[in-house]
Amino acid sequence: MTPVPNPRILYASIPTGYPIPGENTKYDDSEQIDLENVPLKGGYLTRTVLISPEPWLRERLRDPTVASYSSPMRLGLPMVGSGLVKVIRSEDPKIKVGDFMTGLIPWQLYIVHPWEGWQPWPPGHWPDFTVDIDAGGLSGLTKVQKLPGKDWTAVPGVLGAPGRTAWMGLKEYGDLKKGETIYVSTGAGALGLMVCQFAQAAGLKVIASTGSDEKVKYLMEVIGVDHAFNYKTTKVDSALSKWGPIDVYWDNVGGETLDAAIAHCNIHARILACGYISEYNGEEKYGVKNLAWIFKKRIRMYGILVGDLVPKWAGPFFEEVYKLLAEGKLKTQEHIVHGLENADKAWVELLQGKHLGKTVVVVSNPEA
Amino acid sequence: MTPVPNPRILYASIPTGYPIPGENTKYDDSEQIDLENVPLKGGYLTRTVLISPEPWLRERLRDPTVASYSSPMRLGLPMVGSGLVKVIRSEDPKIKVGDFMTGLIPWQLYIVHPWEGWQPWPPGHWPDFTVDIDAGGLSGLTKVQKLPGKDWTAVPGVLGAPGRTAWMGLKEYGDLKKGETIYVSTGAGALGLMVCQFAQAAGLKVIASTGSDEKVKYLMEVIGVDHAFNYKTTKVDSALSKWGPIDVYWDNVGGETLDAAIAHCNIHARILACGYISEYNGEEKYGVKNLAWIFKKRIRMYGILVGDLVPKWAGPFFEEVYKLLAEGKLKTQEHIVHGLENADKAWVELLQGKHLGKTVVVVSNPEA
Repeated sequence: MTPVPNPRILYASIPTGYPIPGENTKYDDSEQIDLENVPLKGGYLTRTVLISPEPWLRERLRDPTVASYSSPMRLGLPMVGSGLVKVIRSEDPKIKVGDFMTGLIPWQLYIVHPWEGWQPWPPGHWPDFTVDIDAGGLSGLTKVQKLPGKDWTAVPGVLGAPGRTAWMGLKEYGDLKKGETIYVSTGAGALGLMVCQFAQAAGLKVIASTGSDEKVKYLMEVIGVDHAFNYKTTKVDSALSKWGPIDVYWDNVGGETLDAAIAHCNIHARILACGYISEYNGEEKYGVKNLAWIFKKRIRMYGILVGDLVPKWAGPFFEEVYKLLAEGKLKTQEHIVHGLENADKAWVELLQGKHLGKTVVVVSNPEA
Repeated sequence: MTPVPNPRILYASIPTGYPIPGENTKYDDSEQIDLENVPLKGGYLTRTVLISPEPWLRERLRDPTVASYSSPMRLGLPMVGSGLVKVIRSEDPKIKVGDFMTGLIPWQLYIVHPWEGWQPWPPGHWPDFTVDIDAGGLSGLTKVQKLPGKDWTAVPGVLGAPGRTAWMGLKEYGDLKKGETIYVSTGAGALGLMVCQFAQAAGLKVIASTGSDEKVKYLMEVIGVDHAFNYKTTKVDSALSKWGPIDVYWDNVGGETLDAAIAHCNIHARILACGYISEYNGEEKYGVKNLAWIFKKRIRMYGILVGDLVPKWAGPFFEEVYKLLAEGKLKTQEHIVHGLENADKAWVELLQGKHLGKTVVVVSNPEA
């Protein structure tokens, strides 16, 4: 059969601030693939349906001599991130044509699995806190079903990193008690929306901050949080003075926001430290000055990475999420972008907080 | 009988930096007491044997409009802190003449219990994270025995705040595993010495910092820690580069030391935040810049106040400590000062880190 183009988004150069599509990342359609004859070597061939750009990828686009919690991405290869693929050929008896699979994939249209682009670092190359993302694509892909009453585009937000991280993080470390108050930074982002709703389901009062008045309205009117504010026009400190104190702080931001939140914590509060986006794009480091309160108020602060929690919580998570969905208690909200060629732009806009809910890039029709 | 003087150390004015004896605190012997005839109203009369000055008292000498974890001390009344007293008269059938009691007491020679100086704040006056120290002297005094093979002067260090905080904090939050590495700031202080030794007993490698070469020598040669350094001449960062990384950090200091320790934490490290002496005496607040590592390395950080832990751990603590003492595995080290009139000076020198081990003020002869 005639080869067809196999477009990709390549990681082209290390960004200094926000990545620049076309410069740090590049759309490339120079490769071709013969879908009927490409050798599968016992594996399987997929077509990418959805790409799920996520904030944590930013950390991977760095000088590869710098250690961090995930290994750096490989220059010249496709960007790698979460996605949903459909099986179009298979030599693996456990994988059938028509199956949908989710996990870490290169940002390209067609992929033979296991993907040859995985390039694990030599053992001992990274400190032991670094997860080598390229070591076989972590745990490989897993089969996934459509969610009841939802489009396929709802899967990355609910079953992917945002839903898992929110649910498992709150379960393991939140110690949530009915009637307590939680503050969620980046409340209208993919992860924040899940945190808000799981906290509501547990009977907490929810305060959420976000970056636009439109998102504040959405949080108040659609999600029904108790209080929401635009951090660009209202100081965290004054919002929490009014609506706090807080028992739980879900922190995706760090820096100045964390500093203010600590000041408004109750005794025995829990801080769930899940991200530090105030520093992801080369911003100057903010010095946090309120840490004496950690001891004075006996606050507990937990660093969260969802990979640590999956082995323990995956089972109960699926049960609970399907139950909440079936009861209509879990709203999903996607910002949908069409076309692989727009995936990098969609990702950068996500980093800049330009949109509401989970950014999902529709690469191809799931029904095709 | 002729009344005798009842000397006291009064809290005279709010200090700005380190308290100044004679100015912020004042020795006063103007009061008299008739030991045979003073009415006991069903209580008991004690003579103070030991005063145990502790760093946390500094926080109480503050502007009373400022909230903190403990209520402010009352100007014009005696300083209040831990001590050991001997019963010399009693109308309480549970308390016998000759009993030794420990707990919070006014810094004065003779005390009728319950002490009339306790002045609890009105309900709701303080936020719920504030412990009202004056509410009946917390839980009152408890009877205490001499420790096997030790003088009475060993009691405040082992059974008082330092020993309890160290043991219960490590037990509740340390998650200590044999072969791990702990870093202890203020390692040669009363609390630090206990942390070092309990960690050694649990099979950890111990790194300790302290403020003089003499104390470094003591930690290495007498306590037998694996590594010790003088933080005034060796940077925390370079010491931990050499001897780290660390799995547990016992933090009494906060600020810059905490910042450096975070940088040298292993994945899943625990930080036990037990004090912030870098800010106790009006120093400028240091902004901690390494907090993104909390999430990246999935560090857990716990604020510790021993009062929270006593109900759960008091029983096992006494068992373990007596066992370690009986086996000769727990060294005690006191800096002994004689005379009630020197208690405030001894306390300020403790805040300044001038001495090794637990500062104990001998007020009167326990055998008398």
